[in-house]
Amino acid sequence: MTSSTDDTAPGTRRRGRRGGGQDTREALLRAAREVFPVEGYDRATVRTIARRAGVDPAMVNHWFGGKENLFTASVAIPVNPASIVHEFVTGDPDRIGERMVRRFVTVWDEAEGGSFTALLRSITATEEASRMLREFLTTSLFGRLTRELEVDQPQMRAALCGTQMAGLGLMRYVLHLEPLASADRERVVAAIAPTLQRYLTGDIDGVA
Amino acid sequence: MTSSTDDTAPGTRRRGRRGGGQDTREALLRAAREVFPVEGYDRATVRTIARRAGVDPAMVNHWFGGKENLFTASVAIPVNPASIVHEFVTGDPDRIGERMVRRFVTVWDEAEGGSFTALLRSITATEEASRMLREFLTTSLFGRLTRELEVDQPQMRAALCGTQMAGLGLMRYVLHLEPLASADRERVVAAIAPTLQRYLTGDIDGVA
Repeated sequence: MTSSTDDTAPGTRRRGRRGGGQDTREALLRAAREVFPVEGYDRATVRTIARRAGVDPAMVNHWFGGKENLFTASVAIPVNPASIVHEFVTGDPDRIGERMVRRFVTVWDEAEGGSFTALLRSITATEEASRMLREFLTTSLFGRLTRELEVDQPQMRAALCGTQMAGLGLMRYVLHLEPLASADRERVVAAIAPTLQRYLTGDIDGVA
Repeated sequence: MTSSTDDTAPGTRRRGRRGGGQDTREALLRAAREVFPVEGYDRATVRTIARRAGVDPAMVNHWFGGKENLFTASVAIPVNPASIVHEFVTGDPDRIGERMVRRFVTVWDEAEGGSFTALLRSITATEEASRMLREFLTTSLFGRLTRELEVDQPQMRAALCGTQMAGLGLMRYVLHLEPLASADRERVVAAIAPTLQRYLTGDIDGVA
C-alpha cells in the first residue's frame, strides 16, 4: 500500500526532515500559512517556517526563490512582486497606470477571482492577518515600486493605488457588480488606468 | 426581577406580537439579518421580516422608515440611501466627487471603521451575502444616483465609483495602510475626489 513516490518507512516521515519532493513544497505552504499570520510578514523568517515544515531552509529557495514568493503562494496572490514591479516601471512612464491595471485584471481574471475572495476573507478575519498583508504590501510591493519611480509622497501614492486596485478586485471578483464584472479587460483598463497614473505621477493634492 | 420597561409577563413575549418599544427594533434587526441573506435584498419583504420578528409590519416604517433603512441598519451601513443621493446631486455638479468622498470618509471615520470590516467580512463569507449587498447597491444607491445624474453608461459609472469607495474603505479601515489610514480627511478628499468626478461625469473610455 506504500506509494511508490514515498520511500520513507511509514511513521518516520513526520519526525525526520522531508526530502525535496512535492510534499516538501506543500509542507512549506502549510507552515507559511501558520507562521505568517502569527509573526507578521516582516518578522517571520525562512528559518522558522522551514523548521516548522521539518525541511531544510534551503528548500524555501529551491521551491519558491525566497520568502516573498513563499508568502504570495501561501495567500494565493498569483504574482511575483519583484518581477511585477520591474514590469511596471519598464517602458513609457506615462503608461504605468495602464500596465498596472492590465496586469491586475489579467492575473485575477485568469485565477477566476475565487482566490481574491479567499484573500479578502483572510484579511478581514483577524487583525493579525490584516497586519501580515499590510506589511507585505508596504515592504515588497509598494516600497519597491515607489523607490523605482522617484516621486514625491511615495507611500501616499502607493496607498492610493492600493485603494483603486483592491476596490476593483472587490467589485469585479467578490461582489460581481455588473456591468463591471463582465466588462472586457481593455474597457476596464481604459476606465481605471488614468486613476492609477494620476496617483503615481500626477497631482494628488487637489491644487492643480 | 422584571424590568420596568418590559411589562409583558415572562414567557409570553415570544409568542405574542411585540409592542412598539426598543425590543421591537432589536427584533426587527435580528430578523432582517436572518432574512436578507437568504432572500436577497430585492426579494425580501417588510412583511416577511416583520412576521419573523413577531411584530406588526407597520413597525418597520415606525422604526426604520422602510425596507432600505432597515437593511442599512442591519448590516451597519451608517447612511440613508435616499438622503445621501439627494445630498450628492444637490449643488455644483462639478463637485459631486468631492461631496461623495467627503461624506464617505466622514461617515466611516465616525463609525471608527470597525463596522466596515464587519461589512466586508459578511459579504466575503457567502455568495448569498455578496448578492444581497450587490442588489442593495444596484437598486438603492447606484441606480438612484445615476438616474438623477442623467449620464451615459450609468451602471458602469456607478460601479467604477463603487470600486474607488470600497477600496478606500478597505485600505483606510481594514488594512490601516499608512499614511492613508491617518491622513486628514481633506487630504483624502483632495486625492480621491477627481477620480470619482471622472467616473461620474468624465471620460471613462480612454479616448480623450
